[in-house]
Amino acid sequence: MIKAAVVGGSGYIGGELTRLLSRHPRISLEAITSRQLAGQQVADTHPFLRGYVDLEFSGSITGEGMDVVFLATPHGASMKLAPEIARSGAKVIDLSGDYRLKDPSTYKKWYGHEHTDPVNLGKAVYGMNELYQDDIAEADFIANPGCYPTCSTLGLAPLFSDRLVEGWVFIDAKSGTSGGGVEPTKATHHPRCGASVNPYKVGSHRHTPEIAQTLGLLQGDPAEVVFTPHLIPVVRGMLCTMYLKLNSDITKQELLDMYAEFFRRKRFVRITDVPWMQAVIGSNHCEVGLEVVDRRNVVVMSAIDNLVKGGAGQAVQNCNTMFGLPEEMGLDFPGLGV
Amino acid sequence: MIKAAVVGGSGYIGGELTRLLSRHPRISLEAITSRQLAGQQVADTHPFLRGYVDLEFSGSITGEGMDVVFLATPHGASMKLAPEIARSGAKVIDLSGDYRLKDPSTYKKWYGHEHTDPVNLGKAVYGMNELYQDDIAEADFIANPGCYPTCSTLGLAPLFSDRLVEGWVFIDAKSGTSGGGVEPTKATHHPRCGASVNPYKVGSHRHTPEIAQTLGLLQGDPAEVVFTPHLIPVVRGMLCTMYLKLNSDITKQELLDMYAEFFRRKRFVRITDVPWMQAVIGSNHCEVGLEVVDRRNVVVMSAIDNLVKGGAGQAVQNCNTMFGLPEEMGLDFPGLGV
Amino acid sequence: MIKAAVVGGSGYIGGELTRLLSRHPRISLEAITSRQLAGQQVADTHPFLRGYVDLEFSGSITGEGMDVVFLATPHGASMKLAPEIARSGAKVIDLSGDYRLKDPSTYKKWYGHEHTDPVNLGKAVYGMNELYQDDIAEADFIANPGCYPTCSTLGLAPLFSDRLVEGWVFIDAKSGTSGGGVEPTKATHHPRCGASVNPYKVGSHRHTPEIAQTLGLLQGDPAEVVFTPHLIPVVRGMLCTMYLKLNSDITKQELLDMYAEFFRRKRFVRITDVPWMQAVIGSNHCEVGLEVVDRRNVVVMSAIDNLVKGGAGQAVQNCNTMFGLPEEMGLDFPGLGV
Amino acid sequence: MIKAAVVGGSGYIGGELTRLLSRHPRISLEAITSRQLAGQQVADTHPFLRGYVDLEFSGSITGEGMDVVFLATPHGASMKLAPEIARSGAKVIDLSGDYRLKDPSTYKKWYGHEHTDPVNLGKAVYGMNELYQDDIAEADFIANPGCYPTCSTLGLAPLFSDRLVEGWVFIDAKSGTSGGGVEPTKATHHPRCGASVNPYKVGSHRHTPEIAQTLGLLQGDPAEVVFTPHLIPVVRGMLCTMYLKLNSDITKQELLDMYAEFFRRKRFVRITDVPWMQAVIGSNHCEVGLEVVDRRNVVVMSAIDNLVKGGAGQAVQNCNTMFGLPEEMGLDFPGLGV
Repeated sequence: MIKAAVVGGSGYIGGELTRLLSRHPRISLEAITSRQLAGQQVADTHPFLRGYVDLEFSGSITGEGMDVVFLATPHGASMKLAPEIARSGAKVIDLSGDYRLKDPSTYKKWYGHEHTDPVNLGKAVYGMNELYQDDIAEADFIANPGCYPTCSTLGLAPLFSDRLVEGWVFIDAKSGTSGGGVEPTKATHHPRCGASVNPYKVGSHRHTPEIAQTLGLLQGDPAEVVFTPHLIPVVRGMLCTMYLKLNSDITKQELLDMYAEFFRRKRFVRITDVPWMQAVIGSNHCEVGLEVVDRRNVVVMSAIDNLVKGGAGQAVQNCNTMFGLPEEMGLDFPGLGV
Repeated sequence: MIKAAVVGGSGYIGGELTRLLSRHPRISLEAITSRQLAGQQVADTHPFLRGYVDLEFSGSITGEGMDVVFLATPHGASMKLAPEIARSGAKVIDLSGDYRLKDPSTYKKWYGHEHTDPVNLGKAVYGMNELYQDDIAEADFIANPGCYPTCSTLGLAPLFSDRLVEGWVFIDAKSGTSGGGVEPTKATHHPRCGASVNPYKVGSHRHTPEIAQTLGLLQGDPAEVVFTPHLIPVVRGMLCTMYLKLNSDITKQELLDMYAEFFRRKRFVRITDVPWMQAVIGSNHCEVGLEVVDRRNVVVMSAIDNLVKGGAGQAVQNCNTMFGLPEEMGLDFPGLGV
Repeated sequence: MIKAAVVGGSGYIGGELTRLLSRHPRISLEAITSRQLAGQQVADTHPFLRGYVDLEFSGSITGEGMDVVFLATPHGASMKLAPEIARSGAKVIDLSGDYRLKDPSTYKKWYGHEHTDPVNLGKAVYGMNELYQDDIAEADFIANPGCYPTCSTLGLAPLFSDRLVEGWVFIDAKSGTSGGGVEPTKATHHPRCGASVNPYKVGSHRHTPEIAQTLGLLQGDPAEVVFTPHLIPVVRGMLCTMYLKLNSDITKQELLDMYAEFFRRKRFVRITDVPWMQAVIGSNHCEVGLEVVDRRNVVVMSAIDNLVKGGAGQAVQNCNTMFGLPEEMGLDFPGLGV
Repeated sequence: MIKAAVVGGSGYIGGELTRLLSRHPRISLEAITSRQLAGQQVADTHPFLRGYVDLEFSGSITGEGMDVVFLATPHGASMKLAPEIARSGAKVIDLSGDYRLKDPSTYKKWYGHEHTDPVNLGKAVYGMNELYQDDIAEADFIANPGCYPTCSTLGLAPLFSDRLVEGWVFIDAKSGTSGGGVEPTKATHHPRCGASVNPYKVGSHRHTPEIAQTLGLLQGDPAEVVFTPHLIPVVRGMLCTMYLKLNSDITKQELLDMYAEFFRRKRFVRITDVPWMQAVIGSNHCEVGLEVVDRRNVVVMSAIDNLVKGGAGQAVQNCNTMFGLPEEMGLDFPGLGV
């Protein structure tokens, strides 16, 4: 069994990781940390795990004795903890934003502070499994993608890989509120968001440069991205509707064929007509659909479960790849549907 | 024009009072206080009031120059502020729980501290307008009922007035999340409550003795009440489903006739088959329906808008009565329906 | 009093019209028709109107004796009914799509059948009150705008009027489910839409040419529009998020100033930072906000209540204008906020 | 492998059964029927099953060659199909209401028609697995319990088994809308139920006699039940809040101990303080909590996923028991939590 630890297990991503790892046939969850909840039963915080996880939160871990450590810590905290864990020999999968932006100056611009771990930043492989599986297989350190970048990049990758996009892409993202984390805030206060759809951080969300970085690498030229996230009155789930212009005439059927080919061996991406968010809830799947309007305008739609494919599930998928296991191990179940 | 002030105008009840008073043909809203927001535009906090309310929050008021002061302050705070305002000659309508329980020892038991204003507690009239309109017309000080007591008592009053109830009444209440107030909490965090129905304070909610007090007065004997509130994933609205046994055989039609008679001249209570919450949203109306099961078990259902009839609307209705105006002035509009 | 009738009063728009007209100080609602419900109380179908509307549904009306007739009938039905009513001398306000597209061939292309009333199509004034108030004041026949066109056009009008847009505008619209009407459908079945956000009619919704027509007239050149509607799990309310490129450098502040000037005397449009849907619910208001990203990309956000400003409220506003009344008469109240 | 078929696979329960069986390690899903969809891919109707189920709907099956047949057909239809299937030698698990009420006259009273299969009605074992596991292990024909009876009976069984209840039990049930099935109806039309909590069939729901039957058998005397279901704006999940009086003084702790003992070896029932619906969503678990009020009034709360433990999951659990497999096989995963 692969020995794993989760650092920062009190939040939604930590709980979801624990949920998935508790059923994984080849990974043994050895420790879950939470500074504030050290000594308490994990299932007291995550009651749905009672009967599945019989661990207490540890105050901290070093990586010693672990094969892999998942960091479900906030950005800033991850890059303080990661160096020691990486030195211990454990593989690291960081779910924060700390190791996603390859350029430290871009990191500083968007996250507001210097990057303090350039060594691991250089080593970290961006864990968009459908795009970089070979690199992930060789990696010891994974920067697990953000939820919005996962959803939007999977929807756009075939177009940018084939250099078919002219000018800007406009990404209109709708996210369930669990993406905002476990701490109550004004934005996720039910009377504020429970009967509304609320745009936030218009043009200034930190996932913008992460999306642009991947799309730019795919097309070999800087990508121009406008990204507008919205909170919708749903707990789990995310839909990105994306607008762009093609640089040549391609029919919808040609695009669909291209998408089918691009994701041909990818278990978790389904090409469909119009994605239905509920079809992927609780699962690691992503549904992608598209429409061509007036010959050159493309609307791409992409749906995921923000906590699974957009976080914990993709981290487990990456872990599988790093240890030579089939990518779907422990993740091979369908979404809820309704 | 009647000069009015709202103390504690930054919360949902304060905003709702301001919304209603801003359109009232005979009440002029002169001041709205908020210690924390003093000097800021009211419409910055309540953006829906832009174009309707052109006031800044005041830090405090004394009651001087006012005909009536609405206290939309938390319990504990109200009884500190009310004595001075009452001395100024202004009528007082308190929307907190401070003046609802006539017995100070009951107050202490449920609110956890001594009552410090027994004088006004003795004078305060309980503002359940459909029951005590004559007393309210004579009053200078109103204890405005809580949202749950309003909804449940209106549904039960005819049965208790006629002394038809045997033993306990079980009240199963479902409330929109705006009842929890404007401050984010774990209970109203969308991921926690947005796809669930969550019971809370089972058997221990402070509205229990308030309901029991009124029902006991109506039947002339102590009433026995079990009260279980639930949060439902709705922002506005409340439904109480209530279960009790009759002490004699009465048909559904006889009960409906009795209800119709009881509320005959009451503009805001509608007897219906099954109440539909959305029919009262945004309005001061209450819908009441009932069913008789196996001859002696009654299920009563009652629906209100928790912020209007359950708070600000009833306060305005009481103000109308206190100043000799028709109870429906400024409140004479239907609910949204959908 | 102005004598009014509503044709097609059993749906949501008919109910909302009735709700608004029942409180209007200068309009008297004389008749409400429904072929299927003729002879039944209106308040049996719309229970929130009990105590406000004491009319039975009529089977049909001719326009005789009426000053104005609101057609809340489906497209296709309106153009069958309108000619006779218009001949009777009553003014007509049609809330269907039948008289919105000035070019009959465009109508045929998008609605799938010939236009059979070219005479009134030629006379009909498009009732976007904030843009065409002078024409509406002179009109006898109004084509009341669709909900999506109202929301999006109000957000975009200042930019197109000043010919500032380069190329395409992408409109990502999120609508509450009441926009789909009163008849149950698969799309509005709660298990299908209640925990999801569902795109539909991508690139093929009938409101597309209506939006393009107005924006094109504003800029004096054909406008290029991609429009993607989504259903969100909200009953009332609509938000449009719109993406476009400017043809010159303008700062956010300059744009905000331009918007403020454009809507200077318009009671129902509020310029804000980020619109909050709940601030306009139940009201005829529209909130518009915007952001400039990377100097030339603009994100415009616009929110309305789809049944009020997006339908019945705007119809009443137009009626006011047609009869020389202040546009806000009977509509002069704020949104619910929460 | 155990060969299984699902009859009536186009609805939500059929889809859920298929979802669970598709991952079951010892059951092989051989056929799924739908008269209307015969010949079409199952995954076209249930898109979340794409990649998991590669079957077409069959028009019908006889039971030949099957070890077990799940009937996910409406009441009335099941008792027409079951006899032939039972004769074929396949075990039958019926998820409709046809075989739950042991007394045919009670069936006729509540379902409105005669029971036409008294032979199998006599043989059918009521599949409340936590109560009747030994009988289920010996059975060839299972009447799988309804969603409301499962949720409420699990919460009440310990009290009725120990004959602790005096008089009536009042069951206030709140269900997600998926319980209403896949066909759009007025009751599940989003504008009607999406921002409301709607009681329905008050005192007259068909699950009432089913609940009373089991509770009566447990206590050895007829049980008196008032049952009020409500639709809440949630797709999946169910909470029952239940009110009753004890016939003797027992503390909360004594009750909790009794519950813990009663469900000691039951994998799927968790005793908790206050159940949280989201902790069981997507899983076969049930959470039960309780409170004692004024010494003799008990409030019991019970939560399940209505489609899993309230339907398809319990059917699989029963199938496991019938074939000598551990009850949790294929169901051994936690709820989603958020």
